[in-house]
Amino acid sequence: MKSLKVGICGLGTVASGVINVLKRNQNEISARAGCSIDVVQVASRRMRDNCDMQGIAFTTSIDELIDNPEIDVVAELIGGYDLAKDIVIKALNNGKHVVTANKALIAEHGNELFALANSKGLVLAYEAGVAGGIPVIKALREGLSANQINCVAGIINGTGNFILTEMKDKGRDFADVLAEAQALGYAEADPTFDVEGIDAAHKLAILASVAFGVPLQFDKAFTEGISGLSTEDINNATALGYRVKHLGIARRHAHGIELRVHPTLIPQAQLLANVDGVMNAVLVDGDAVGQTLYYGPGAGSEATASAVIADLVDVARAVLSDSPVLVPYLGVMPDKLVELPVLPITEIQSAYYLRLSAEDHPGVLAKVSSIMSDSGINIESVIQKDKERENEVIPLVMLTQTVQESKMIAAIAKIEALPEIKGSVVRIRVEQF
Amino acid sequence: MKSLKVGICGLGTVASGVINVLKRNQNEISARAGCSIDVVQVASRRMRDNCDMQGIAFTTSIDELIDNPEIDVVAELIGGYDLAKDIVIKALNNGKHVVTANKALIAEHGNELFALANSKGLVLAYEAGVAGGIPVIKALREGLSANQINCVAGIINGTGNFILTEMKDKGRDFADVLAEAQALGYAEADPTFDVEGIDAAHKLAILASVAFGVPLQFDKAFTEGISGLSTEDINNATALGYRVKHLGIARRHAHGIELRVHPTLIPQAQLLANVDGVMNAVLVDGDAVGQTLYYGPGAGSEATASAVIADLVDVARAVLSDSPVLVPYLGVMPDKLVELPVLPITEIQSAYYLRLSAEDHPGVLAKVSSIMSDSGINIESVIQKDKERENEVIPLVMLTQTVQESKMIAAIAKIEALPEIKGSVVRIRVEQF
Repeated sequence: MKSLKVGICGLGTVASGVINVLKRNQNEISARAGCSIDVVQVASRRMRDNCDMQGIAFTTSIDELIDNPEIDVVAELIGGYDLAKDIVIKALNNGKHVVTANKALIAEHGNELFALANSKGLVLAYEAGVAGGIPVIKALREGLSANQINCVAGIINGTGNFILTEMKDKGRDFADVLAEAQALGYAEADPTFDVEGIDAAHKLAILASVAFGVPLQFDKAFTEGISGLSTEDINNATALGYRVKHLGIARRHAHGIELRVHPTLIPQAQLLANVDGVMNAVLVDGDAVGQTLYYGPGAGSEATASAVIADLVDVARAVLSDSPVLVPYLGVMPDKLVELPVLPITEIQSAYYLRLSAEDHPGVLAKVSSIMSDSGINIESVIQKDKERENEVIPLVMLTQTVQESKMIAAIAKIEALPEIKGSVVRIRVEQF
Repeated sequence: MKSLKVGICGLGTVASGVINVLKRNQNEISARAGCSIDVVQVASRRMRDNCDMQGIAFTTSIDELIDNPEIDVVAELIGGYDLAKDIVIKALNNGKHVVTANKALIAEHGNELFALANSKGLVLAYEAGVAGGIPVIKALREGLSANQINCVAGIINGTGNFILTEMKDKGRDFADVLAEAQALGYAEADPTFDVEGIDAAHKLAILASVAFGVPLQFDKAFTEGISGLSTEDINNATALGYRVKHLGIARRHAHGIELRVHPTLIPQAQLLANVDGVMNAVLVDGDAVGQTLYYGPGAGSEATASAVIADLVDVARAVLSDSPVLVPYLGVMPDKLVELPVLPITEIQSAYYLRLSAEDHPGVLAKVSSIMSDSGINIESVIQKDKERENEVIPLVMLTQTVQESKMIAAIAKIEALPEIKGSVVRIRVEQF
């Protein structure tokens, strides 16, 4: 094979990055791959002028591209669900390897798509779907293959991390920063996927499968967004020596896995707490290696293209050897995936940050402490803040030790029922890695 | 193939880690590799009781192991040069794949050994040689294959980083911390390799080759150790918002590469500045992906074993496909390596931290400033510290902007020739990534 011939579906940000980087670095890439990697056709609803299309055929018909006998690999770079799934299935059925940057597709339909790819002996690669340019899928599937992975925890949504960083550094509130992120193009017009943790849960579901060798279970993931976070809580966290990050956390237990995305306090001395702005990072804890961390840009045209092209180079190297599927899709051989259920969020163990609004009344702290103690919850520290003059309500901030979430929920219900407590108790989980 | 059969040379810390992890995680590892990976024989001068040798043949004869027809892969885990080189050559000549954790061997004899392995169509893998358990060779050779790599900078010696962290955190001096590191087993009885930057230069030479696609050039690396660092300079750096790290830096230019290991001030806000203790981290700057960083334990029995076994899993996956050498040894096809010379240290560009001891005399700063200005060196900031009473000498600390090293050397010679300047000028390079 003198050239791996690629057909790209879509001509958006990532696709143009792939075309531009493949052209700019063609000498380096072919020296690494052992053959040149050439985009021969692009299918998109419309032509754009964001990249050099010289030598690349253009069509508005995806079917034409998928049926193009010249093409070895289809890169699905349009995103979304239905059409993307259709493309991947047709491409595999046509005997073409597939590379995608589509985390939603893999997280929600990966089990079915990998089974199809496996039955055809074809690659279905998705490095670009998780943490953009960071080769973390490769690290888990190959670099850490000696390990039982205990835990994966990551900042895997750049938009959310940008918003939290601005809130911390500049004291701005959520809505204000979100509007700026939308203006900068970091956040979509509908920011739900990013700020409510759905995008992060897609990536986390994939990371968990590859880390633990379990089927994809996105639908079981717990998600809690950052739209309810106040600058008051972010500032309190800072004062306590913590940072608030929107983390995806997957942890393996003998009887099941945790799969959860939520705002989390982490001690500021930890590397993960220092990952700011739109950057992503994934911390992996393995039984042999201990903790390793992978940091880099989680999005962007050429950063994502870097991962797409790395998958294409893998395909080229493997196709040259006539053995395309060397590395199993989810890290373990398909018949060795282990069915481990996702644990309900009420069963996880966590420490907590709590903020209560209490009447300035002697004995309130005693009542709260007594509820906690009766619930088997140890309080690590309490900060009683200055009275807010206008309504005579005192913010009471506390950190607890680790406890099962169901106990914390029950204790909070009792605390909220106290007549001296006003409104809801703010609760943010606290993790140390 | 039902099993990949491994023979291990050596029975030290890393070898026992490999044996223990392969046994403990045999289910996970075989599910990932597609076959079981079994150590069938160990050759060592003497038996030890640091691992479970059940089912593993023991010999004191390395030749017996290398001639064992049952063995598919030889793991060279004895370290050092001559014997290790001999083992690798004999194993390759006997048709066996080789996995090694020996950075010195690869850095100094890799060009010759890779040529031999290539001529035999055999794997010679060395992930464990660089940054211990961090899969950074895989990241460079595969995960970032789309990129022109501009720069690699790393904390790649855990002993040195432990010493610098202790000096910063506790104000202890170098000799004191080194003695503790030796007692803890982090540092060798002869610490030269670690503290003078030779070990880091071995790893950096390998990283540079893989990053830039150039032959190994360890002998051309510039090294400057940390044994001359004083707590005074480390404290000054902290006060200026920097951390002092013993960095390996490789940078690619059109006409050559930088390859240098030396103490370096980096702004404390950068992630690399926050890598403390025995941990390692490697920052990679690629033209498409931007900056990515890989963090983890750079040494230790099971952390290093994690990388050795990952290489064995790669061999198993590839051997099962009858195409062992999928990924070229140094990331690019052997005939595509580019000869790029290592630039002399005098040609690099750097900013500098300088500390002068000056007589308390009006006009000293003016004289120094004038020398700098005449040399084309811009001063970024100056701190004139309190007089040290006993000898009436004032420490003068300054940060310069970026300048060519040869100009800085010439300027320092002129400054040291001033009658008001006592002793040598302390000079530490400053980098921002």
